[in-house]
Order: sequence, then structure tokens, then C-alpha cells
Amino acid sequence: MKFFPAQTYIDRRAKLKSSLKSGLILLMGTNEAPLNYPDNHFRYRQDSSFMYFFGINQPGLNAIIDTESGEEVLFGDEFTVEDIIWVGQLETIASKAAKVGVKDIRPSSKIADILSMAQAKGRKVHFLPPYRFDNKLQLMEWLGLGAKQVKPNVSSELVKAVINLRSYKSEEEIAQMTHAVNISREMHINAMRNIAEGKKEYEVVAELYRTAKANNSYLAYPAIFSINGQTLHNHGHNNTMTGNRLVLNDSGAENEMLYSGDITRTAPVSGKFSDKQKEIYNIVLEMEENSIASLKAGVMYRDVHIDSNKLMLRRLKELGLVSGNTDELAEQGMGGLFMPHGLGHQIGMDVHDMEDLGEDLVGYGEDLERSTQLGLKSLRLAKKLEANFVITVEPGLYFIPELIESWKAEKMFAEHINYDKLKAYYDFGGIRIEDDVLVTENGHQILGDKIPKTVEEVENAMAS
Amino acid sequence: MKFFPAQTYIDRRAKLKSSLKSGLILLMGTNEAPLNYPDNHFRYRQDSSFMYFFGINQPGLNAIIDTESGEEVLFGDEFTVEDIIWVGQLETIASKAAKVGVKDIRPSSKIADILSMAQAKGRKVHFLPPYRFDNKLQLMEWLGLGAKQVKPNVSSELVKAVINLRSYKSEEEIAQMTHAVNISREMHINAMRNIAEGKKEYEVVAELYRTAKANNSYLAYPAIFSINGQTLHNHGHNNTMTGNRLVLNDSGAENEMLYSGDITRTAPVSGKFSDKQKEIYNIVLEMEENSIASLKAGVMYRDVHIDSNKLMLRRLKELGLVSGNTDELAEQGMGGLFMPHGLGHQIGMDVHDMEDLGEDLVGYGEDLERSTQLGLKSLRLAKKLEANFVITVEPGLYFIPELIESWKAEKMFAEHINYDKLKAYYDFGGIRIEDDVLVTENGHQILGDKIPKTVEEVENAMAS
Repeated sequence: MKFFPAQTYIDRRAKLKSSLKSGLILLMGTNEAPLNYPDNHFRYRQDSSFMYFFGINQPGLNAIIDTESGEEVLFGDEFTVEDIIWVGQLETIASKAAKVGVKDIRPSSKIADILSMAQAKGRKVHFLPPYRFDNKLQLMEWLGLGAKQVKPNVSSELVKAVINLRSYKSEEEIAQMTHAVNISREMHINAMRNIAEGKKEYEVVAELYRTAKANNSYLAYPAIFSINGQTLHNHGHNNTMTGNRLVLNDSGAENEMLYSGDITRTAPVSGKFSDKQKEIYNIVLEMEENSIASLKAGVMYRDVHIDSNKLMLRRLKELGLVSGNTDELAEQGMGGLFMPHGLGHQIGMDVHDMEDLGEDLVGYGEDLERSTQLGLKSLRLAKKLEANFVITVEPGLYFIPELIESWKAEKMFAEHINYDKLKAYYDFGGIRIEDDVLVTENGHQILGDKIPKTVEEVENAMAS
Repeated sequence: MKFFPAQTYIDRRAKLKSSLKSGLILLMGTNEAPLNYPDNHFRYRQDSSFMYFFGINQPGLNAIIDTESGEEVLFGDEFTVEDIIWVGQLETIASKAAKVGVKDIRPSSKIADILSMAQAKGRKVHFLPPYRFDNKLQLMEWLGLGAKQVKPNVSSELVKAVINLRSYKSEEEIAQMTHAVNISREMHINAMRNIAEGKKEYEVVAELYRTAKANNSYLAYPAIFSINGQTLHNHGHNNTMTGNRLVLNDSGAENEMLYSGDITRTAPVSGKFSDKQKEIYNIVLEMEENSIASLKAGVMYRDVHIDSNKLMLRRLKELGLVSGNTDELAEQGMGGLFMPHGLGHQIGMDVHDMEDLGEDLVGYGEDLERSTQLGLKSLRLAKKLEANFVITVEPGLYFIPELIESWKAEKMFAEHINYDKLKAYYDFGGIRIEDDVLVTENGHQILGDKIPKTVEEVENAMAS
């Protein structure tokens, strides 16, 4: 098990403590998650906030931080001598706790009393929104809450304090994220090498799994790997790859320290982009590179999204697919037809970092409001960028026949969208290109080694 | 999505209905399971009993069968026109339901009323033990139960009826299981080819993932792949493989229809068994082959377990590691020191088939009692075998220094165990060999194509 230096965790907890006025902070780790019966589990995944403050990647742990006394207690049950016969000599919780600067370890059975005594004294118990249902049931039991009372009792004070810490990636975190991106890079390159006409998509997805595991990692999220890149929520891998299609590969690794990569590349099944594919591909590439070029602290990410839409429409106008004042039309939301999703989101331990804490709080803060425009309304990160945010930049361009037909029927932008000419793109599919980028005071840095991205680089990687 | 013929599901439901006297049967499908926030999921896995009776492998479904009126209703929400823009043209629930002989589809929102109306009329709602916590919460809400009332209200009548159907594998199921075993076979052969001194265990586990996915399958359970085969509950893959060790590989595939393989092989890291390894390996091989040879309907599996222990002790006596009347000593439990687990279990869609319904009900029935002896007490399947059971046969032989030392300290079988001589095996590790076997009226059939198993076959596979 890997750890940052103890001081890292000690500092994080000290900052957390100092940002809350009173009460107990309860941080719940995750348990093993049952697959098809209680003892058969999905792969284990610790909670990211627990990992951030306590660093121990193992099931069955919870922690309480007393904001007033300063006490930090880790609750968990050590293996018994009998257990050791079955699991071998494993490092104790106490030993791991020492590595993250925690000395007070108590059995799990002790936590209920501490919480109920605190409540009896009128002290607040701060907790984060549970996304695991066993943790929700546990909270209900510990705090005497009904199922419907859990959400309203989440501590927004704690949520904000955690977001305020986890949003800024430290140097040691950036090293971890670079590592995760480099594994993701290897996944993408291996996928490019394995794409071939006639193969099933899942045969290439197999390479993603292999590459992640060969690096002691997992997929950070279910891979999108599809010749139907235009269907955005697409987790099936059952299609046969045919020569005229593009394959969109949105996948990334989660490394041992639980940091994630989130990378998208799009490649032609045949190994060579057709002229028509190249034309659209280079628009998306320009959108991606332009968006990245504009990144630095102080920039509003919503503006980067909109600028990217403007660029896209300008280029689509050159192709005769749209007409008119494309900058104005972009402001009015015309870009949503071709890119009905947001430009990106924060990334860290979670691929959508801290999404469990609330997407709006993480990406919009308390002042900004979400747009209702198609595309922009799906933008997860809109607010002003700050140094040490790590974000994804993932423009895309899709021809979604069902969406185009529905806009056409509703006469949306009827004067400015050449619906007739778009018919020639109904079998085109979709393209997305995505990198993970560190925002700095005066600029930005794409994480990891270069991943084939230009038409030439992708074609070369596929031929290698 | 693959289905058996509709008649298969219609017949299964008819049998289920006829085995319950009254009330409603509620069968809950599974939902997507959250990994680190609500919208990032583990891989999807349908519930096995839901799959058995309703055959649709997708999240968000539930079903009610009225044992009196005979009605069968599937609850789920079709994609909306808007959804189709995001997910593409997918087969509707209604279309899938038609393939399993179900006509009555209703929105999910309708289920609560039907259940509460039934309860108001004093009708029993039969449900199986929930192992997913979201389903438990859902049951609590629908049936007005507290967290502690769910378990006592599980319908043992329904549980027994389901066990009584799922225990007997049909021809079409056996074909599926053979398919799953053959994928598992490919996993094992690829692993054998990839084992090499100096590699990390996870580098070979990567081949297991790749092979499963390349066959559109998943691992049926977390793979045990370890040079420390003697630690039975061992899911880590972080060791470097060293030349003098054996690697124990217990892994299997779950195919698209959710049928599982469960195979174990043990191979020498060096590619060649040492004489000492060969000696122990051949004992386990003989135990496995002898156990399988004895299988047929009417045989008590507990006896097969005990016979296997007797054979093991007889052979260990020849090596001078134990002495005395080994048959008697086996009955007294001495075998538990070397094989502290059971000989096998039923397998089907679940790798431990129907374990969610209760291991004792599945493996012991209502008459047999579990032993308290080490080893035998872990036997999951003890009862009389019947034709069309599919079971695992998985003897093992382990040298667990901690366990040996603890028996020595307690002077267990002090006269008959040569504790001094055992010291030479403290760095040996462990061996297990496992196949999946169909029990027939007059014999048995090992499922799938032959997987390298003898010393020679394993060495040849490693060299291939």
C-alpha cells in the first residue's frame, strides 16, 4: 500500500478542522460492495475523501475528527490471530495509521456510542452525502435518521470545506495524476494498435483492461469504446468494427493511490482517416488545442466552452453546414446540436472530481447559475479556474441523426442550419478528443507524455 | 442481449408459481452500483434469480408474480424519445419482455401501490434476501419495514422454491456453463504462458482480465492469483514471482448469460516443478481425480470430502509427515491442518450458486448439520448429490506456518503429526486443483475442454 508522507495527511486534517467551527466530522470509508451475494464483491474502491484525509485504502474503516478537541480517531477492526491463518501476515491498521499520522485506533463497535453521546450533548455530527447505500443505512442507524432525513442532514459546511481543499492539487497529487494519465496513455496506444476491421469492440476493450491491470490499476470509469461515438451514453461494446467508421475511445486508469486519468481519442477503424473524417477531426483538434491554449488562472471555464463552440460553428460554416453570424448563434446555443455536452470537469481521485459532493457546488460555486441551453446545461465546470485545478478539456463534434431530426422538426435555427446538407453526415458518427490539464497561475500544463493526437500521430500509432 | 427460448422462462415461472400456495412473489432486479459517486458505476450485474425467471440483463427492473391470479408483471421505465438522443436506438423493455414471454410491462412508479394494496388485503409478499443495500432500502420503503425487519420477513417458502428449481441445471444451462468454463480455460492457459520469474502477479492477472473481456465476459469473482497459495483469502496481486514458488490461480469467467466458471490450477513460477513440488502436487491431483471419479447421483458430498482427506493423509503418511491410522485420524479432523476448506460447492450463475439464498439451505438442506471441525466446517455443499447438479471439486494441500504452529502449541494430534518434519515445508506455499463437474444419474462429466492439469500438461502449457 502506498502513502504520501504522514505530514501530508496531518496538514490536510488540520486544515479541515480549522475550516469548521464546531462539532464532530464523520468521514466514512467504503466497505466491500456485493456483486451477486454478500461474499462475492466488486473490486474494492475506497472513498476519495476518506482517502484524502486518512490515506488507508482498505474496507471497513471510519473516522471521526473532533473540531473542538482536535482528536482524530480511526475506527476499524484489526485482524485476529485466527484471521492471520487465512489472510497471511498483513500490515495492521495501527501500522498504516501511523503512516498517516493517526495514533488513536478503536474498534468499529465503539463509533455508535461516540456519535450518540455527541448528539445527546447537542453537538453537530457533520457528514458528507453517502452514495453507497450501506453507508446510508449505517448513518440512519448511527444518527437515528429515517431514509428521507439523510440528505437534508448532510453538512454543507463540511461539503464546502472538503471541496475547498480537494480542488487544489498539490505537487505530490499532480505526480500521481501524471502517473495515472501515463497509464491511460498506454491504454490508448495499445487500443489504437489493436483496432481492426471485423473485430468486436470488446476485443479491443480487453486491451484496456489488460493494460490497466498490468500497471496495477483499474479502469477509472466504464470505458466508452464505440463505433457509435455519436451516442454519448454508450457503454456497450458489442458492435463489430467496420472499415468506414471512427472508433471513439474514452477511457482512463485509476492508479494505486486512486488518482484517475480521463482521456479520449478517436481513430478510424481502417487505420486511415478519410478526407471527410479528417475535415471534422481537425475541427475538434483545433477546438481542443485552442481551449487548452486559453487556460490559466482567472479564466472562466464557461467562456472557454462557449469560445470552443464559436470556433466549431465558424469551421462548420466553412463547410457550408451552418450559416450566419456564428458567434452570435453560438451564444444562442446552436453549438449544442453538434456538441451537446460540456467542455470538461475537474478531475482528481474521482474522474468527475468530488461529484458525490454536488456537481453544482464543485463546478459553479455559489454565484453562477447553470444554463438551460443544450450542451451548456451539461457543462460540469463553469466557474473561474484557479491555479492547481486539474481539469479535462474534451470538445466533441457529433452528428446525431435523432437530434438533428428533432431540431429540424422544431425548426430550430432553421435559417442557419443546412439540414439538407447534414444528411450526408448521418452515418458519420462522432469525434471527441480529451486531455487532462493542470491550470497554473499563468498558463497550463497537459499532464503526462504526449498521446497520439493529430491525424498523422493517430495513423502512425495504429500502424505501429 | 442473449436469451434462452421464451418457453424456458415461461416454464420456470409456471413451476415457481405452482410451488407457492398464495401471495405475491416480488423478484427484484439489481440497479447500477455506485463506485465513488452516484453516476460512476461498477460493471453492471443482474441478479441471478431475476435473470433465471425473467432473463433480461439490464438495470432498473422488478417483477411481481401473482401466485393466485397467475399474473406476471414486469416493472421498468422505457427510454424516452429524449433518452434515445443519448443512448441510441436500443431495444425496448417490451421487446425484450416478449422474448421471455412477458406481456404486462408497467412503469416502475406503479409497483409501490400494488404491493401496499396487496398488503392491505392481507396478502403475503414473498421476497428473497436482499444482498444489495439499495434493494434493501427499497424493500423497507415499499413494505413499510424497518432495517431490522427485512431479514425476518424474507420468505423461506420462496427461497426453498427457488433453490429447488435453480439447483437442477437444464441442458441449455449446461451448454452455457460449458461455455463459461471454456473461457476460464483460455484464461488459465494464457496465465500459464505468462507466468515468469521477476514479474509481478498483477501482470499475469492482467491476462485474465484481457482474456475474459476478449470473450465478452467478466471475471466471475475476484481472482486469487498468488505465490502465497497457502493464505486462502488472498486477493492481493502485488508480489513479485520468484523462481522457487508455486503460483495458485483460482479464477473463472462469467459469460454474457451470467453463467460462471470456477477453475483452479497451480503452476511452478520456474516453469518446472521441483521434485518436492511434484510430490505434493500429485497428491492433490490424485485427490481431485479420485473425488471426481466417485461422483454420481445419490452420493453424499460430505463423504467425498472426507474420503479425499483420507487419501491425502494416507499419502502424507508415506512422506512421513503424519503417522497412525490415517482413516480414523481423518474422521477426527486431522486433514483440516492441510486442507482447511471444503471440497466444493454448487455452481451456476453464481460462482457459489444461490449463496445469497442461504449457504446451509443450498448445501445442507434441512436435515444435515454442519460439522465444527476445521476444514469440514467450511464445506459449502454436504448433502446428497442429485442428477443435474453442477459442482466444483477443489481439493487443496497447504502448509500454513501460522496454523501448523498453533496446532503444535495446542498439541493437536501431537502423536501423529510430525511437526519437526513439517518445518521443511514452511516455505512451500499451497496447491489447489479445481474443476467444474456435472453430476449425472450414473456418473459425472467434467465441464469444458481439458485444462492442463498433470505435471506434464502444466509444464507443457507454460512452455507453449
